[in-house]
Amino acid sequence: MNLFGFLGPKGTFSEIALKTYLKNEDVDVECMGYASIDKLFLALDSKRCSAIIVPVENSVEGSVTTVVDHLIKLNDTFITAEFVLKIEHNLMVKDESKSITDIISHYQPIAQCRHYLESNYPDVDLNNAESTAKAADFVSDYNGDKVYGVIGHESLAKRYGFNIMDRNINDSKENVTRFFIISRKPTEPTGNDKSTIVFSTMKDQSGSLANVLNEFQSKSINLTHISSRPTKTSLGEYLFYIDCEGHFQDEILSEVLKLVEKKTSYIKCLGSYKKGGK
Amino acid sequence: MNLFGFLGPKGTFSEIALKTYLKNEDVDVECMGYASIDKLFLALDSKRCSAIIVPVENSVEGSVTTVVDHLIKLNDTFITAEFVLKIEHNLMVKDESKSITDIISHYQPIAQCRHYLESNYPDVDLNNAESTAKAADFVSDYNGDKVYGVIGHESLAKRYGFNIMDRNINDSKENVTRFFIISRKPTEPTGNDKSTIVFSTMKDQSGSLANVLNEFQSKSINLTHISSRPTKTSLGEYLFYIDCEGHFQDEILSEVLKLVEKKTSYIKCLGSYKKGGK
Repeated sequence: MNLFGFLGPKGTFSEIALKTYLKNEDVDVECMGYASIDKLFLALDSKRCSAIIVPVENSVEGSVTTVVDHLIKLNDTFITAEFVLKIEHNLMVKDESKSITDIISHYQPIAQCRHYLESNYPDVDLNNAESTAKAADFVSDYNGDKVYGVIGHESLAKRYGFNIMDRNINDSKENVTRFFIISRKPTEPTGNDKSTIVFSTMKDQSGSLANVLNEFQSKSINLTHISSRPTKTSLGEYLFYIDCEGHFQDEILSEVLKLVEKKTSYIKCLGSYKKGGK
Repeated sequence: MNLFGFLGPKGTFSEIALKTYLKNEDVDVECMGYASIDKLFLALDSKRCSAIIVPVENSVEGSVTTVVDHLIKLNDTFITAEFVLKIEHNLMVKDESKSITDIISHYQPIAQCRHYLESNYPDVDLNNAESTAKAADFVSDYNGDKVYGVIGHESLAKRYGFNIMDRNINDSKENVTRFFIISRKPTEPTGNDKSTIVFSTMKDQSGSLANVLNEFQSKSINLTHISSRPTKTSLGEYLFYIDCEGHFQDEILSEVLKLVEKKTSYIKCLGSYKKGGK
Protein backbone atom coordinates (compact mmCIF):
# COMPACT_ATOMS: atom_id res chain seq x y z
CA MET A 1 0.00 0.00 0.00
CA ASN A 2 1.25 3.48 -0.90
CA LEU A 3 1.50 6.03 1.92
CA PHE A 4 0.27 9.60 1.24
CA GLY A 5 1.50 12.16 3.81
CA PHE A 6 -0.25 15.33 5.04
CA LEU A 7 0.27 17.91 7.81
CA GLY A 8 -1.53 16.30 10.74
CA PRO A 9 -3.05 15.57 13.14
CA LYS A 10 -6.46 14.54 11.77
CA GLY A 11 -8.83 17.46 11.12
CA THR A 12 -6.36 19.94 9.54
CA PHE A 13 -7.24 21.68 6.27
CA SER A 14 -4.43 19.61 4.72
CA GLU A 15 -6.24 16.38 5.57
CA ILE A 16 -9.52 17.73 4.17
CA ALA A 17 -7.75 18.84 0.97
CA LEU A 18 -6.15 15.40 0.58
CA LYS A 19 -9.39 13.47 1.14
CA THR A 20 -11.26 15.73 -1.30
CA TYR A 21 -8.49 15.43 -3.89
CA LEU A 22 -8.37 11.61 -3.62
CA LYS A 23 -12.14 11.31 -4.24
CA ASN A 24 -11.52 12.04 -7.92
CA GLU A 25 -8.36 9.94 -8.25
CA ASP A 26 -8.46 6.22 -8.86
CA VAL A 27 -5.69 5.25 -6.43
CA ASP A 28 -5.41 2.94 -3.46
CA VAL A 29 -3.48 4.83 -0.74
CA GLU A 30 -3.27 5.10 3.00
CA CYS A 31 -3.17 8.66 4.45
CA MET A 32 -0.72 9.48 7.22
CA GLY A 33 -0.47 12.71 9.24
CA TYR A 34 2.97 14.18 10.13
CA ALA A 35 3.54 16.68 12.93
CA SER A 36 5.28 19.39 10.87
CA ILE A 37 6.09 20.48 7.32
CA ASP A 38 9.74 19.48 7.91
CA LYS A 39 8.76 15.95 8.98
CA LEU A 40 6.46 15.68 5.95
CA PHE A 41 9.24 16.45 3.45
CA LEU A 42 11.59 14.15 5.38
CA ALA A 43 9.08 11.27 5.04
CA LEU A 44 9.02 11.85 1.26
CA ASP A 45 12.81 12.11 0.96
CA SER A 46 13.40 8.95 2.99
CA LYS A 47 10.79 7.12 0.84
CA ARG A 48 8.52 6.35 3.78
CA CYS A 49 5.84 8.19 1.77
CA SER A 50 5.27 7.81 -1.96
CA ALA A 51 3.58 11.22 -2.13
CA ILE A 52 2.71 14.22 0.07
CA ILE A 53 0.25 17.13 -0.08
CA VAL A 54 1.42 20.57 1.07
CA PRO A 55 -0.30 24.01 1.33
CA VAL A 56 1.67 26.43 -0.84
CA GLU A 57 -0.35 29.67 -1.07
CA ASN A 58 -3.43 31.24 0.48
CA SER A 59 -5.41 33.92 -1.35
CA VAL A 60 -5.31 36.22 1.70
CA GLU A 61 -2.10 35.40 3.55
CA GLY A 62 0.12 34.59 0.54
CA SER A 63 2.93 32.04 0.29
CA VAL A 64 3.39 29.38 2.96
CA THR A 65 7.06 30.18 3.26
CA THR A 66 8.17 26.99 5.07
CA VAL A 67 6.78 24.97 2.16
CA VAL A 68 8.20 27.25 -0.54
CA ASP A 69 11.68 27.01 1.05
CA HIS A 70 11.47 23.20 0.82
CA LEU A 71 10.52 23.20 -2.87
CA ILE A 72 13.98 24.25 -4.06
CA LYS A 73 15.42 21.17 -2.30
CA LEU A 74 13.20 18.64 -4.14
CA ASN A 75 15.45 15.71 -4.98
CA ASP A 76 14.15 13.27 -7.61
CA THR A 77 10.63 14.35 -6.66
CA PHE A 78 8.29 16.66 -8.59
CA ILE A 79 5.19 18.79 -8.21
CA THR A 80 2.68 16.55 -10.02
CA ALA A 81 -0.70 18.16 -9.22
CA GLU A 82 -2.30 21.26 -7.71
CA PHE A 83 -5.53 21.40 -5.76
CA VAL A 84 -7.46 24.47 -4.58
CA LEU A 85 -9.63 24.25 -1.45
CA LYS A 86 -12.16 26.87 -0.33
CA ILE A 87 -11.43 27.77 3.29
CA GLU A 88 -14.15 28.54 5.82
CA HIS A 89 -13.06 29.26 9.36
CA ASN A 90 -15.26 28.70 12.40
CA LEU A 91 -14.96 29.83 15.99
CA MET A 92 -15.47 26.89 18.33
CA VAL A 93 -15.58 26.49 22.14
CA LYS A 94 -15.87 23.66 24.66
CA ASP A 95 -18.55 25.39 26.73
CA GLU A 96 -20.61 28.14 25.14
CA SER A 97 -21.94 29.42 28.47
CA LYS A 98 -18.56 30.99 29.32
CA SER A 99 -16.98 34.17 27.85
CA ILE A 100 -13.90 33.59 25.71
CA THR A 101 -10.66 34.94 27.25
CA ASP A 102 -8.18 33.46 24.73
CA ILE A 103 -8.20 32.40 21.09
CA ILE A 104 -5.85 29.75 19.69
CA SER A 105 -5.12 28.54 16.14
CA HIS A 106 -2.37 28.31 13.50
CA TYR A 107 -1.03 31.80 12.70
CA GLN A 108 -2.51 31.74 9.16
CA PRO A 109 -6.19 31.37 10.25
CA ILE A 110 -5.64 34.05 12.91
CA ALA A 111 -4.30 36.37 10.20
CA GLN A 112 -7.18 35.45 7.88
CA CYS A 113 -9.73 36.43 10.57
CA ARG A 114 -7.89 39.54 11.82
CA HIS A 115 -10.69 42.07 11.24
CA TYR A 116 -13.36 39.75 12.64
CA LEU A 117 -11.28 39.27 15.80
CA GLU A 118 -10.54 42.99 16.19
CA SER A 119 -14.24 43.83 15.91
CA ASN A 120 -15.65 41.01 18.04
CA TYR A 121 -12.85 40.08 20.44
CA PRO A 122 -10.59 43.17 20.72
CA ASP A 123 -9.35 42.27 24.22
CA VAL A 124 -8.76 38.49 24.09
CA ASP A 125 -5.25 37.07 23.93
CA LEU A 126 -4.28 35.48 20.59
CA ASN A 127 -2.21 32.26 20.77
CA ASN A 128 -0.47 30.36 17.98
CA ALA A 129 -0.37 26.57 17.58
CA GLU A 130 1.42 24.49 14.92
CA SER A 131 -1.87 23.54 13.24
CA THR A 132 -5.60 24.13 13.72
CA ALA A 133 -6.06 20.52 14.83
CA LYS A 134 -3.21 20.79 17.37
CA ALA A 135 -4.94 23.89 18.78
CA ALA A 136 -8.19 21.92 19.15
CA ASP A 137 -6.32 19.04 20.78
CA PHE A 138 -4.73 21.47 23.28
CA VAL A 139 -8.07 23.04 24.19
CA SER A 140 -9.72 19.63 24.52
CA ASP A 141 -7.15 18.64 27.18
CA TYR A 142 -7.03 22.05 28.91
CA ASN A 143 -8.51 22.33 32.41
CA GLY A 144 -7.30 25.75 33.64
CA ASP A 145 -9.07 29.07 34.23
CA LYS A 146 -8.83 30.46 30.69
CA VAL A 147 -11.71 29.99 28.24
CA TYR A 148 -10.29 29.17 24.81
CA GLY A 149 -11.91 29.71 21.42
CA VAL A 150 -10.43 27.63 18.57
CA ILE A 151 -10.42 28.72 14.92
CA GLY A 152 -10.53 25.97 12.29
CA HIS A 153 -12.59 23.67 10.05
CA GLU A 154 -16.03 22.68 11.35
CA SER A 155 -15.04 19.00 11.39
CA LEU A 156 -12.93 19.78 14.49
CA ALA A 157 -16.16 20.62 16.39
CA LYS A 158 -17.51 17.14 15.69
CA ARG A 159 -14.20 15.43 16.45
CA TYR A 160 -13.69 17.18 19.80
CA GLY A 161 -17.32 17.79 20.82
CA PHE A 162 -16.98 21.60 20.58
CA ASN A 163 -19.83 24.08 20.00
CA ILE A 164 -19.61 26.31 16.92
CA MET A 165 -20.03 29.93 18.13
CA ASP A 166 -19.72 31.59 14.72
CA ARG A 167 -19.38 30.26 11.17
CA ASN A 168 -17.37 31.48 8.17
CA ILE A 169 -15.56 34.18 10.14
CA ASN A 170 -12.75 34.74 7.59
CA ASP A 171 -12.43 38.42 6.58
CA SER A 172 -12.44 37.62 2.86
CA LYS A 173 -15.18 35.30 1.67
CA GLU A 174 -12.93 34.50 -1.33
CA ASN A 175 -10.55 32.61 0.94
CA VAL A 176 -8.90 29.66 -0.85
CA THR A 177 -5.70 27.71 -0.25
CA ARG A 178 -3.71 26.12 -3.05
CA PHE A 179 -2.02 22.78 -2.37
CA PHE A 180 0.71 20.94 -4.29
CA ILE A 181 0.94 17.17 -4.54
CA ILE A 182 4.58 16.09 -4.67
CA SER A 183 5.58 12.61 -5.82
CA ARG A 184 8.27 10.60 -7.58
CA LYS A 185 7.21 10.46 -11.22
CA PRO A 186 7.00 13.57 -13.43
CA THR A 187 3.73 13.97 -15.35
CA GLU A 188 3.08 13.73 -19.08
CA PRO A 189 1.53 16.76 -20.87
CA THR A 190 -2.30 16.99 -20.88
CA GLY A 191 -2.60 20.10 -23.06
CA ASN A 192 -3.90 22.13 -20.09
CA ASP A 193 -0.87 22.37 -17.80
CA LYS A 194 1.09 24.75 -15.62
CA SER A 195 4.73 24.60 -14.55
CA THR A 196 6.55 25.89 -11.48
CA ILE A 197 10.06 27.25 -11.97
CA VAL A 198 12.57 28.65 -9.49
CA PHE A 199 15.52 30.83 -10.53
CA SER A 200 17.95 33.42 -9.28
CA THR A 201 18.98 36.35 -11.42
CA MET A 202 22.40 37.70 -12.34
CA LYS A 203 23.83 40.38 -10.01
CA ASP A 204 22.14 43.59 -11.25
CA GLN A 205 18.62 42.92 -9.93
CA SER A 206 16.68 45.54 -11.89
CA GLY A 207 17.65 44.64 -15.41
CA SER A 208 18.09 40.93 -14.86
CA LEU A 209 14.60 40.12 -13.57
CA ALA A 210 13.02 42.13 -16.39
CA ASN A 211 15.27 40.27 -18.87
CA VAL A 212 14.00 36.90 -17.65
CA LEU A 213 10.33 37.93 -17.68
CA ASN A 214 10.74 39.39 -21.19
CA GLU A 215 11.62 35.90 -22.50
CA PHE A 216 8.25 34.56 -21.34
CA GLN A 217 6.47 37.64 -22.70
CA SER A 218 8.10 37.32 -26.13
CA LYS A 219 6.48 33.87 -26.55
CA SER A 220 3.18 35.02 -24.97
CA ILE A 221 3.55 32.60 -22.06
CA ASN A 222 1.33 33.83 -19.26
CA LEU A 223 2.63 33.90 -15.68
CA THR A 224 0.00 33.04 -13.08
CA HIS A 225 2.18 33.53 -9.98
CA ILE A 226 5.43 35.24 -9.02
CA SER A 227 6.98 35.50 -5.58
CA SER A 228 10.43 36.02 -4.13
CA ARG A 229 12.20 34.36 -1.20
CA PRO A 230 15.53 35.35 0.36
CA THR A 231 18.53 33.19 -0.65
CA LYS A 232 19.26 33.23 3.12
CA THR A 233 22.85 34.32 2.56
CA SER A 234 22.55 38.10 2.33
CA LEU A 235 19.81 40.77 2.56
CA GLY A 236 18.60 41.77 -0.91
CA GLU A 237 19.43 38.48 -2.70
CA TYR A 238 16.37 36.54 -3.82
CA LEU A 239 15.13 33.36 -5.44
CA PHE A 240 12.12 33.90 -7.69
CA TYR A 241 9.33 31.36 -7.98
CA ILE A 242 7.04 31.60 -10.99
CA ASP A 243 4.13 29.53 -12.23
CA CYS A 244 3.54 29.73 -15.96
CA GLU A 245 1.16 28.15 -18.42
CA GLY A 246 2.46 25.10 -20.31
CA HIS A 247 4.29 21.81 -19.69
CA PHE A 248 8.10 21.58 -19.58
CA GLN A 249 7.91 19.05 -22.42
CA ASP A 250 6.00 21.55 -24.62
CA GLU A 251 8.19 22.87 -27.43
CA ILE A 252 7.59 26.58 -26.73
CA LEU A 253 8.16 26.41 -22.96
CA SER A 254 11.29 24.25 -23.25
CA GLU A 255 12.69 26.75 -25.79
CA VAL A 256 11.98 29.65 -23.42
CA LEU A 257 13.60 27.79 -20.51
CA LYS A 258 16.78 27.31 -22.59
CA LEU A 259 16.90 31.07 -23.27
CA VAL A 260 16.14 31.90 -19.63
CA GLU A 261 18.96 29.59 -18.51
CA LYS A 262 21.48 31.96 -20.14
CA LYS A 263 20.07 34.90 -18.18
CA THR A 264 19.97 33.32 -14.72
CA SER A 265 22.64 32.13 -12.31
CA TYR A 266 20.40 29.21 -11.24
CA ILE A 267 17.23 27.68 -12.66
CA LYS A 268 15.21 24.54 -11.95
CA CYS A 269 11.80 23.34 -13.15
CA LEU A 270 10.05 21.88 -10.10
CA GLY A 271 7.31 20.13 -12.07
CA SER A 272 4.46 20.46 -14.57
CA TYR A 273 0.90 19.54 -13.68
CA LYS A 274 -2.66 19.81 -14.91
CA LYS A 275 -4.30 23.16 -14.01
CA GLY A 276 -6.30 22.71 -10.82
CA GLY A 277 -8.72 25.62 -11.29
CA LYS A 278 -9.70 28.07 -8.59
CA MET B 1 7.29 64.87 24.39
CA ASN B 2 7.01 62.81 21.19
CA LEU B 3 6.02 59.15 21.55
CA PHE B 4 7.91 56.56 19.44
CA GLY B 5 6.14 53.16 19.23
CA PHE B 6 7.67 49.69 18.91
CA LEU B 7 6.46 46.06 19.10
CA GLY B 8 6.69 45.34 22.82
CA PRO B 9 7.00 44.28 25.54
CA LYS B 10 10.48 45.44 26.57
CA GLY B 11 13.28 43.19 25.34
CA THR B 12 12.05 42.51 21.77
CA PHE B 13 14.41 42.94 18.82
CA SER B 14 12.19 45.90 17.83
CA GLU B 15 13.02 47.70 21.08
CA ILE B 16 16.74 46.99 20.61
CA ALA B 17 16.59 48.27 17.01
CA LEU B 18 14.81 51.46 18.13
CA LYS B 19 17.24 52.18 20.97
CA THR B 20 20.23 51.58 18.68
CA TYR B 21 18.71 53.75 15.94
CA LEU B 22 17.97 56.62 18.34
CA LYS B 23 21.57 56.71 19.62
CA ASN B 24 22.59 58.42 16.37
CA GLU B 25 19.58 60.73 16.12
CA ASP B 26 19.38 64.02 17.93
CA VAL B 27 15.77 63.72 19.09
CA ASP B 28 14.00 63.83 22.42
CA VAL B 29 11.43 61.01 22.42
CA GLU B 30 9.78 58.57 24.77
CA CYS B 31 9.60 54.93 23.63
CA MET B 32 6.39 52.96 24.09
CA GLY B 33 5.81 49.22 23.49
CA TYR B 34 2.56 48.04 21.85
CA ALA B 35 1.26 44.46 22.08
CA SER B 36 0.89 43.77 18.34
CA ILE B 37 1.74 45.13 14.90
CA ASP B 38 -1.94 46.08 14.43
CA LYS B 39 -1.99 48.10 17.66
CA LEU B 40 1.28 49.78 16.63
CA PHE B 41 -0.13 51.05 13.31
CA LEU B 42 -3.36 52.07 15.07
CA ALA B 43 -1.34 54.17 17.56
CA LEU B 44 0.30 55.97 14.60
CA ASP B 45 -2.98 56.47 12.71
CA SER B 46 -4.76 57.85 15.75
CA LYS B 47 -1.80 60.22 16.40
CA ARG B 48 -1.03 58.77 19.82
CA CYS B 49 2.48 58.13 18.41
CA SER B 50 4.41 60.57 16.27
CA ALA B 51 6.50 57.73 14.79
CA ILE B 52 6.83 53.92 14.92
CA ILE B 53 9.52 51.37 14.08
CA VAL B 54 8.49 48.09 12.37
CA PRO B 55 10.44 45.00 11.21
CA VAL B 56 9.87 44.63 7.46
CA GLU B 57 12.25 41.94 6.19
CA ASN B 58 14.63 39.33 7.59
CA SER B 59 17.54 38.02 5.51
CA VAL B 60 16.56 34.39 6.24
CA GLU B 61 12.80 34.38 6.73
CA GLY B 62 11.88 37.11 4.22
CA SER B 63 9.09 39.68 4.43
CA VAL B 64 7.22 40.29 7.68
CA THR B 65 3.87 39.98 5.92
CA THR B 66 1.70 41.58 8.63
CA VAL B 67 3.84 44.72 8.36
CA VAL B 68 3.96 44.71 4.55
CA ASP B 69 0.15 44.45 4.39
CA HIS B 70 -0.13 47.57 6.58
CA LEU B 71 2.23 49.63 4.39
CA ILE B 72 -0.27 50.00 1.55
CA LYS B 73 -2.74 51.58 4.02
CA LEU B 74 -0.35 54.37 5.13
CA ASN B 75 -2.46 57.52 5.37
CA ASP B 76 -0.56 60.83 5.52
CA THR B 77 2.40 58.91 6.95
CA PHE B 78 5.62 57.90 5.17
CA ILE B 79 8.57 55.57 5.42
CA THR B 80 11.24 58.05 6.50
CA ALA B 81 14.21 55.84 7.48
CA GLU B 82 15.50 52.26 7.32
CA PHE B 83 17.66 50.55 9.92
CA VAL B 84 19.36 47.14 9.69
CA LEU B 85 20.05 45.16 12.89
CA LYS B 86 22.25 42.07 13.14
CA ILE B 87 20.26 39.31 14.82
CA GLU B 88 21.82 36.82 17.24
CA HIS B 89 19.51 34.27 18.82
CA ASN B 90 20.21 32.62 22.17
CA LEU B 91 18.66 29.61 23.89
CA MET B 92 17.75 30.51 27.48
CA VAL B 93 16.27 28.55 30.40
CA LYS B 94 15.12 29.25 33.94
CA ASP B 95 16.97 26.29 35.46
CA GLU B 96 19.87 24.78 33.56
CA SER B 97 19.93 21.60 35.65
CA LYS B 98 16.75 20.31 33.94
CA SER B 99 16.36 18.89 30.41
CA ILE B 100 14.34 21.03 28.02
CA THR B 101 10.98 19.49 26.98
CA ASP B 102 9.54 22.50 25.09
CA ILE B 103 10.86 25.51 23.20
CA ILE B 104 8.92 28.76 22.84
CA SER B 105 9.51 31.93 20.78
CA HIS B 106 8.05 34.05 17.98
CA TYR B 107 7.65 31.95 14.79
CA GLN B 108 10.39 33.90 12.99
CA PRO B 109 13.24 33.03 15.44
CA ILE B 110 12.06 29.39 15.48
CA ALA B 111 12.26 29.35 11.67
CA GLN B 112 15.67 31.07 11.77
CA CYS B 113 17.05 28.33 14.10
CA ARG B 114 15.32 25.39 12.36
CA HIS B 115 18.48 23.34 11.60
CA TYR B 116 19.98 23.96 15.04
CA LEU B 117 16.75 22.78 16.68
CA GLU B 118 16.47 19.69 14.43
CA SER B 119 20.06 18.69 15.25
CA ASN B 120 20.06 19.45 18.97
CA TYR B 121 16.42 19.16 20.08
CA PRO B 122 14.72 16.85 17.54
CA ASP B 123 12.06 15.66 20.00
CA VAL B 124 11.04 18.79 21.90
CA ASP B 125 7.72 20.52 21.22
CA LEU B 126 7.96 23.90 19.46
CA ASN B 127 5.56 26.62 20.63
CA ASN B 128 4.83 30.03 19.12
CA ALA B 129 4.35 33.29 21.03
CA GLU B 130 3.52 36.77 19.69
CA SER B 131 7.01 38.07 20.42
CA THR B 132 10.28 36.80 21.91
CA ALA B 133 9.72 38.95 25.00
CA LYS B 134 6.18 37.63 25.44
CA ALA B 135 7.61 34.08 25.31
CA ALA B 136 10.13 34.97 28.04
CA ASP B 137 7.37 36.55 30.11
CA PHE B 138 5.27 33.37 29.79
CA VAL B 139 8.16 31.11 30.86
CA SER B 140 9.04 33.38 33.76
CA ASP B 141 5.51 32.94 35.17
CA TYR B 142 5.19 29.22 34.32
CA ASN B 143 5.16 26.72 37.19
CA GLY B 144 4.05 23.44 35.53
CA ASP B 145 5.90 20.22 34.69
CA LYS B 146 7.29 21.25 31.31
CA VAL B 147 10.82 22.68 31.02
CA TYR B 148 10.80 25.57 28.55
CA GLY B 149 13.69 26.92 26.53
CA VAL B 150 13.20 30.47 25.16
CA ILE B 151 14.82 31.78 21.97
CA GLY B 152 15.57 35.51 21.81
CA HIS B 153 18.00 38.36 22.43
CA GLU B 154 20.44 37.91 25.32
CA SER B 155 19.02 40.95 27.12
CA LEU B 156 15.99 38.77 27.98
CA ALA B 157 18.27 36.54 30.10
CA LYS B 158 19.27 39.53 32.21
CA ARG B 159 15.73 40.90 32.41
CA TYR B 160 14.18 37.58 33.52
CA GLY B 161 17.13 35.99 35.34
CA PHE B 162 17.47 33.17 32.77
CA ASN B 163 20.62 31.15 32.05
CA ILE B 164 21.98 31.24 28.49
CA MET B 165 22.41 27.59 27.36
CA ASP B 166 23.71 28.33 23.87
CA ARG B 167 24.67 31.55 22.06
CA ASN B 168 24.20 32.64 18.43
CA ILE B 169 22.16 29.57 17.47
CA ASN B 170 20.72 31.01 14.22
CA ASP B 171 21.38 28.76 11.21
CA SER B 172 22.75 31.60 9.10
CA LYS B 173 25.39 33.78 10.74
CA GLU B 174 24.45 36.51 8.23
CA ASN B 175 21.10 36.98 9.96
CA VAL B 176 19.91 40.59 9.81
CA THR B 177 16.50 42.24 10.09
CA ARG B 178 15.58 45.44 8.28
CA PHE B 179 13.32 47.92 10.06
CA PHE B 180 11.35 50.90 8.69
CA ILE B 181 10.70 54.06 10.65
CA ILE B 182 7.31 55.52 9.73
CA SER B 183 6.36 59.09 10.59
CA ARG B 184 4.37 62.11 9.46
CA LYS B 185 6.77 64.25 7.45
CA PRO B 186 8.29 63.06 4.15
CA THR B 187 12.08 63.41 3.90
CA GLU B 188 14.15 65.73 1.72
CA PRO B 189 16.69 64.17 -0.72
CA THR B 190 20.18 63.46 0.69
CA GLY B 191 21.78 62.25 -2.56
CA ASN B 192 22.05 58.70 -1.17
CA ASP B 193 18.42 57.57 -0.95
CA LYS B 194 16.12 54.66 -1.61
CA SER B 195 12.37 54.65 -2.25
CA THR B 196 9.67 52.05 -1.60
CA ILE B 197 6.89 51.76 -4.17
CA VAL B 198 3.81 49.51 -4.28
CA PHE B 199 1.87 48.82 -7.48
CA SER B 200 -0.47 46.37 -9.12
CA THR B 201 -0.11 45.46 -12.76
CA MET B 202 -2.64 45.40 -15.59
CA LYS B 203 -4.46 42.09 -16.13
CA ASP B 204 -1.97 40.06 -18.24
CA GLN B 205 0.56 39.30 -15.48
CA SER B 206 3.49 38.10 -17.60
CA GLY B 207 3.90 41.04 -19.91
CA SER B 208 2.74 43.72 -17.53
CA LEU B 209 5.27 43.12 -14.73
CA ALA B 210 8.11 42.99 -17.25
CA ASN B 211 6.82 46.24 -18.80
CA VAL B 212 6.99 48.01 -15.43
CA LEU B 213 10.48 46.71 -14.59
CA ASN B 214 11.72 47.68 -18.06
CA GLU B 215 10.94 51.35 -17.27
CA PHE B 216 13.34 51.26 -14.31
CA GLN B 217 15.93 49.37 -16.36
CA SER B 218 15.78 51.88 -19.21
CA LYS B 219 16.93 54.64 -16.82
CA SER B 220 19.45 52.35 -15.07
CA ILE B 221 17.60 52.59 -11.75
CA ASN B 222 18.64 49.65 -9.62
CA LEU B 223 16.04 47.64 -7.70
CA THR B 224 17.24 46.42 -4.30
CA HIS B 225 14.09 44.49 -3.32
CA ILE B 226 11.02 43.01 -4.96
CA SER B 227 8.27 40.99 -3.35
CA SER B 228 4.63 40.20 -4.03
CA ARG B 229 1.61 40.01 -1.73
CA PRO B 230 -1.88 38.80 -2.57
CA THR B 231 -4.49 41.53 -3.20
CA LYS B 232 -6.66 39.38 -0.87
CA THR B 233 -9.53 39.33 -3.36
CA SER B 234 -8.64 36.43 -5.62
CA LEU B 235 -5.89 33.80 -5.94
CA GLY B 236 -3.26 34.86 -8.48
CA GLU B 237 -3.74 38.66 -8.11
CA TYR B 238 -0.80 40.45 -6.52
CA LEU B 239 0.54 43.74 -5.27
CA PHE B 240 4.25 44.23 -5.95
CA TYR B 241 6.55 46.03 -3.51
CA ILE B 242 9.84 47.30 -4.84
CA ASP B 243 12.67 49.27 -3.31
CA CYS B 244 14.74 51.26 -5.79
CA GLU B 245 17.65 53.63 -5.62
CA GLY B 246 16.80 57.35 -5.65
CA HIS B 247 14.44 59.86 -4.01
CA PHE B 248 10.90 60.50 -5.33
CA GLN B 249 11.86 64.17 -5.74
CA ASP B 250 14.83 63.21 -7.99
CA GLU B 251 14.18 64.14 -11.61
CA ILE B 252 14.96 60.70 -13.07
CA LEU B 253 12.90 58.69 -10.58
CA SER B 254 9.88 61.00 -10.76
CA GLU B 255 10.00 60.71 -14.58
CA VAL B 256 10.11 56.91 -14.35
CA LEU B 257 7.21 56.88 -11.88
CA LYS B 258 5.10 58.94 -14.32
CA LEU B 259 5.79 56.37 -17.08
CA VAL B 260 5.13 53.45 -14.72
CA GLU B 261 1.80 55.01 -13.71
CA LYS B 262 0.53 54.46 -17.26
CA LYS B 263 1.43 50.76 -17.07
CA THR B 264 -0.11 49.94 -13.69
CA SER B 265 -3.66 49.83 -12.37
CA TYR B 266 -2.48 51.21 -9.00
CA ILE B 267 0.75 52.81 -7.81
CA LYS B 268 1.85 54.61 -4.62
CA CYS B 269 5.23 55.79 -3.38
CA LEU B 270 5.38 54.91 0.33
CA GLY B 271 8.39 57.09 1.08
CA SER B 272 12.01 57.91 0.30
CA TYR B 273 14.75 57.61 2.89
CA LYS B 274 18.52 57.61 3.33
CA LYS B 275 20.10 54.20 2.62
CA GLY B 276 20.55 52.36 5.90
CA GLY B 277 23.36 50.02 4.83
CA LYS B 278 23.49 46.32 5.60
